[in-house]
Amino acid sequence: MKAIYFDGKKAFFTEEYPKPIPMLEKGESLIRILISAVCNTDKEILKGYKPDFKGVMGHEFVGIVEDSHDKTLLGKRVVGELNDGCGHCLYCQTARQKHCPDRRCIGISKADGCFAQYMVWKNKLLHVVPDTIATEKAIFTEPLAAALEIPTQVHIKPDMPIAVIGDGRLSLMVTQVLSLSGACVTVIGKHTEKLTLFQKYAKTTVSQEGSYEIVVDATGSASGFDTAKKLVRKGGTIILKSTYAGELNVNMSHIVVNEITIVGSRCGPFAPALNLLEKGLITLPEITLYPLEQFQEAFEANVFKAGFLLSQL
Amino acid sequence: MKAIYFDGKKAFFTEEYPKPIPMLEKGESLIRILISAVCNTDKEILKGYKPDFKGVMGHEFVGIVEDSHDKTLLGKRVVGELNDGCGHCLYCQTARQKHCPDRRCIGISKADGCFAQYMVWKNKLLHVVPDTIATEKAIFTEPLAAALEIPTQVHIKPDMPIAVIGDGRLSLMVTQVLSLSGACVTVIGKHTEKLTLFQKYAKTTVSQEGSYEIVVDATGSASGFDTAKKLVRKGGTIILKSTYAGELNVNMSHIVVNEITIVGSRCGPFAPALNLLEKGLITLPEITLYPLEQFQEAFEANVFKAGFLLSQL
Repeated sequence: MKAIYFDGKKAFFTEEYPKPIPMLEKGESLIRILISAVCNTDKEILKGYKPDFKGVMGHEFVGIVEDSHDKTLLGKRVVGELNDGCGHCLYCQTARQKHCPDRRCIGISKADGCFAQYMVWKNKLLHVVPDTIATEKAIFTEPLAAALEIPTQVHIKPDMPIAVIGDGRLSLMVTQVLSLSGACVTVIGKHTEKLTLFQKYAKTTVSQEGSYEIVVDATGSASGFDTAKKLVRKGGTIILKSTYAGELNVNMSHIVVNEITIVGSRCGPFAPALNLLEKGLITLPEITLYPLEQFQEAFEANVFKAGFLLSQL
Repeated sequence: MKAIYFDGKKAFFTEEYPKPIPMLEKGESLIRILISAVCNTDKEILKGYKPDFKGVMGHEFVGIVEDSHDKTLLGKRVVGELNDGCGHCLYCQTARQKHCPDRRCIGISKADGCFAQYMVWKNKLLHVVPDTIATEKAIFTEPLAAALEIPTQVHIKPDMPIAVIGDGRLSLMVTQVLSLSGACVTVIGKHTEKLTLFQKYAKTTVSQEGSYEIVVDATGSASGFDTAKKLVRKGGTIILKSTYAGELNVNMSHIVVNEITIVGSRCGPFAPALNLLEKGLITLPEITLYPLEQFQEAFEANVFKAGFLLSQL
C-alpha cells in the first residue's frame, strides 16, 4: 500500500509498504484511511524530535473500520486517540494513559501512523464520528481535543480575561473553546490575514500588559513564554501548549513572588470534541488535501491545514 | 528607640531611631514588639534582594497594641500580615492585596519593620493571638501561613503521595500542614539532625523517582527545581517556595509533554495558621532569642529559628 515512511532521519513515499494485519482477538481494528492531516509534531519529527521512531508517519485521521471484532465499529467512520498505554502501570490506572512510559503512539512512537492507505489501531481508542459531521470537519477532532485539554486541567471562569498567543490552527481551536465559556478572549498574532479568522471569537488587540488571568502560549516557539509572562496577571495562570527543542532561561523567583501557575498541556479528550463538532459550535478552517505522493508539498504548504486524501468514503 | 536599620546596602543597630507615631484616625495602631524573628528574606535583603528598601528591617513579630482607635485591639497580643495594598486596584479588589503594585510591606518595602521596640501597622492586618498560644509559638504564624498558602492554591487530596524538598523551617511547616490532610509526605533533606524533627510527620527516604503527585521545593536554592522535576509524576504538580537570585534553564517541552503544573507560592492566610496553633496541631521548634544589639549573631546563627527579645509581656 501507499505510505509515508520515516526511517529515523528522513521521510519518503513508498507504494510497497505491507498492508497491516490487525490482531482482531486482541482488540485491534483494520482502518481504511479516508483523510489524514499534517500536524506540527510531524514537522518536528522531520527535524529530529523523535530520533528513535521508525515507521509510517501521521496521527490525525478519519477512516472507515473494515475489520474488527467490535461489531459496533464495523463499517463506521472513526477518529482515534493517539496513545495506547500498557494498561497496567500507575498512569494507565489513573486515567493518564497518555503518560504511560511504555505507551505506543501512532506515527510518533512504536506504532505505524495514518499517512497510509490502511492503519491498525485499538478499538478502545476509536470514536465513531456522528453522521452529521463531514469528514473534512472530523479531521479536526484531535487538535480540538488538545484545546479541550485546557478546561480539563484548569477551571476557566467566565469572568476571566484570557489571552491566547499565536494565530495558528491550535490557537484557533483554543480561542473558540475558551470563548464558549463566555470569557473575553484576546488573541495575539503576527499574521493579519490569519487574525481575521479569529475576529468572531476574540479581540485582536492587547488592552494592557499584566491584565490576563489566563494566558495560553500556542505559538510553538520559545518566544511565547516571554510574551505570556508579560501578559499574565499576578496570581494568574500560563498554559503551555508549545513544544520546541532547547531550554529557556526562567527567573523562578518571579514565578514565586507573583504566584504564577504554569500548566503544561498536551493531548485532550476526544468525546467532548466530537460533541462540539456535532453541535456545530466550532467554526473550522478549510483543509487542503494533497495526494500522498506530494507529501513534501503538504509539509511545506502555507495553508491553515494540510492533509492527504487517501480514499473515498 | 532601639532598631535595626537597613540603609539600602547594610544593616546597623541604633538606639536613636524615632519612636513611630500611628495615624490612629487612618486605622493604624502602635505596637510594642515583644519578639520578632529572622526570616531568609531578611538575609536576602542584606545580600541585595531589595536595593530600594531603606528602613527598619523585619516582618515576623508578636507585639502588644498600645494605642489604637480599634478598642478590640487595645492591650491585645497580635501578629500581623505583611502586605498593605492600596485598596483600590484590581489586585486589592480581588483578594490579592499581596500582589498590589503599590503595596507597602513591613521591613521589605515602603514600611518600617519589626526589628525595633515599636512599630506602626494597619488594624486590618493585625490578628489577635488567642491566650492559649505562647508568644514563642505565635511567632511562627507567618511561616505557618506561608505553608497554608499551598492548600489555598492547590487541591491536596489525601491519597496523593507528596514530597517536600528541604529540611529547614519552612519545610517543617509545609510538611506538617500537608500531613494533616492524611497524605503520605516524604521529606528530602541533607541534614540528619534536622531530619529527626520531621520523622513524626514524614518519611525521610525517597521511594522512587517520578512517584509523587505533589512536590514542594522549599530549599531556597536553584537546585530544588531539578530535584522536583525528577521526583514529580507526569501530570503532577511542583510547588515553588524558593526565591533566589538568577535564572534557571528549563526545558519547557518537558513540562508540556509531561503536563507538569508549576505553582509559584508565597505568603498565606493568617487565620487558619492561628487556628492550627490554637488547636495544638503543629509542633514548633524552639526559637533562640538574642538582644537586638546582637543582630549580626542572630542573622548568622546556626539554629532552627533565630529572633530578638524586645520587651516583656
